[in-house]
Order: sequence, then C-alpha cells, then structure tokens
Amino acid sequence: MSTARGRGRPSRTQSETGPATRDRILAAARGEFSEHGYEKTSVRGIAKAAGVDPALVHHYFGTKEQVFEAAITVAFAPALEAPAAIEEGPLDGVGERLTRFVFGVWENPATRAPLLAIVRSAMNNDTAAAVFRRLIAAQLLSRIAGRLDLPDAELRAELAAAQLVGVAMLRYVIKVEPLASADVEQIVARVAPVVQGHLTGP
Amino acid sequence: MSTARGRGRPSRTQSETGPATRDRILAAARGEFSEHGYEKTSVRGIAKAAGVDPALVHHYFGTKEQVFEAAITVAFAPALEAPAAIEEGPLDGVGERLTRFVFGVWENPATRAPLLAIVRSAMNNDTAAAVFRRLIAAQLLSRIAGRLDLPDAELRAELAAAQLVGVAMLRYVIKVEPLASADVEQIVARVAPVVQGHLTGP
Repeated sequence: MSTARGRGRPSRTQSETGPATRDRILAAARGEFSEHGYEKTSVRGIAKAAGVDPALVHHYFGTKEQVFEAAITVAFAPALEAPAAIEEGPLDGVGERLTRFVFGVWENPATRAPLLAIVRSAMNNDTAAAVFRRLIAAQLLSRIAGRLDLPDAELRAELAAAQLVGVAMLRYVIKVEPLASADVEQIVARVAPVVQGHLTGP
Repeated sequence: MSTARGRGRPSRTQSETGPATRDRILAAARGEFSEHGYEKTSVRGIAKAAGVDPALVHHYFGTKEQVFEAAITVAFAPALEAPAAIEEGPLDGVGERLTRFVFGVWENPATRAPLLAIVRSAMNNDTAAAVFRRLIAAQLLSRIAGRLDLPDAELRAELAAAQLVGVAMLRYVIKVEPLASADVEQIVARVAPVVQGHLTGP
C-alpha cells in the first residue's frame, strides 16, 4: 500500500498524509459509493479500499455524509460547471444544450458510475437525497431557472430535469427496451424539444 | 412445505394454510419490500411479519424473486388493468388520462408505498429490475404503444413514461422543491401535453 516504506516508521509514511492521500480516499469513496450505494458503504470500507486507517478518513472529511458530499462534489465538478456553458448562447437552444450535456455525462462510463451511485443512493436514503438536493437541484437547476426569468421558472427547470432523469433511469438503470439500445441522437431528437418546451414554452 | 398440516400435528393450525394465509404472506411481503427494498428483504423476514414458518412462504411462492413478483402483481392489479381505461376514449386525450392515472396512484398513500418499493428495488437490484421490466414495461407500456400504430411507438411510450417516472422521482422520492409541494393540477397541466406529444406528436 505505502510507497514510502523504508524511510522510517512503517505505520505512518509520507504517502499517508497530504493531498495525494486525500485524493486516494476520495477516489476510494467514489468507488465504494458507486458499487455499494450510500447505505451499505462504511467509512471503514472506504479506508480499507484506500489503504489507510479509518481515522484518516474522518480526519480529512468528517462523517460518512461529508465523505459522500465531497465525493459527489469532486465527481461532479465538471457537471456543476456546466450551467455556464448551458446558459451561454441563445435561449432557444438551451433545451438541446442541456439534453446533450446530460447524455454526454451518462454515455461516458467514467462519469456514469458516480452519477448512478448518487441517483441510487438518493432514492434509498434521506441523507443522500438531501446531498442530491443541495448539489444537483440547488446548484444546477436554480442557475438554469435564473436564466428563464419566468414566475414558475424553478418548477419548469425541475420538470425538464424530470424528463432527463426519467430517461436516464429507464435507459441506464432499468434498461427498458427499445430505449436502452436506442441511438442517443434519436433520443436527443425527441427529448431536447420537450426540455426546451418545459423551459421556455407556453 | 406440506399442505396437509392440520391433519394431526399441533404446530400447524388451520389459520396457517389456505387462501387467508397466502394473502397474509403477500401483505407481509408487500410491507417488507416497501420498507426495506428488495435486497434487504428476506423470506425469513416476510415469514416473521406474517407470523408463519419461512417454509410456508417458499411453499406458496417459491424464491424471494417469485414472492416479489407476486407482491407486485397483487399491488398493481389495478394499475395493470389501467391500460384498458387509458386506451379507451379519443387518442388525443390519452396523454392526460395516462398522466392523471399515474398521479392518482402516486398521490394515494396506499398505492404509493408499494410503487415506491418497486421503483427503489428496481434501481438497486438487477432481479428486481427484471421484474419491473416484465410487469410494468411489458404489460403497461406495450399496450399503450399498441394503440399508437406508429413505427417508433414503443420508444414513444417509454419516453412518455420517462417523463412521468422522472417527475415521480423528483417529487415523491428526492422531494425537490417547488415540485414536491406543487399542486397536482399545476403539474398535470404541464406534464400531460408532454406525454401526449411523446405519444402522438410529430
């Protein structure tokens, strides 16, 4: 596990502290939450996967909920930056930009796994649901809603998100056919106008 | 397990066999799956909740997957009959009928709990997802698709279902505001045209 054996104390080497360790714990946490979901993941399991003492996980992140939030935040740094890109450009293309962004995240196996973990965890655990609300709903949706300048903008943004979340659930999780095997472009062609309609339609 | 108990042995009373017992086991199974999800529910736990021997659960239903499918089928008997009502009437009102039907099931606490259990279980377990596909997708959606008489009818029905599933997830499970507290009629007014558009639109 350690890369610095032989320098001195075998139980606490340089590799066990510092940013590299923190990152390794985060990567391990992401893997554990992805594989087992929020409820079945333990700080002990994360520590084991990272090859560190559980106390070190608590030291860097605090509670399991806080590790979860940190893992999500790291995994979704690109996603949480996305609203800027989605907000830019003409408002009548926002539905397609948002739709393409969401399917881009889901179609990429590297980003699909942590996203799946969040969604699954949020479905099953109130704590994980609260983290989901804070990060995804509050940051992503409220920024899109802010662009709309309509009295029911937040509800509109959530109904648009609901279409995208529902397609993702049926396609990537439940794997209902023919949706699961359909070409992404075919789905985008049908879903983007719906998202646009929710956001800017009558 | 024997069905001939009650012929002598005192450990098996009349109340432990017959349709009443089967129904009690089913009710217990529904409760257990609702509360704990598919993975965390055991045949032993169902038996305990029903006040019967685990062997009796196996006798009536077989494996845990089979108990799950039976519990879902019973819970959804009305829902699985619904396509008839949704299919009836003019095709240009099918979006609103389907939307009102789905929200009727979700807004009723008695039907919400088992539905939630199915959706959560299907999100987390491949066996439960397969049961979901067989019952909900195959029976409910394919009948609606059959009414459409369009080449991509099944994909359309699934995208319509995705909008409804997504709204249900964000409103009833994740509880994103303002969607979670919004008036049902306000949601129906926005969602029904989308469902209709998926089913019969261009």
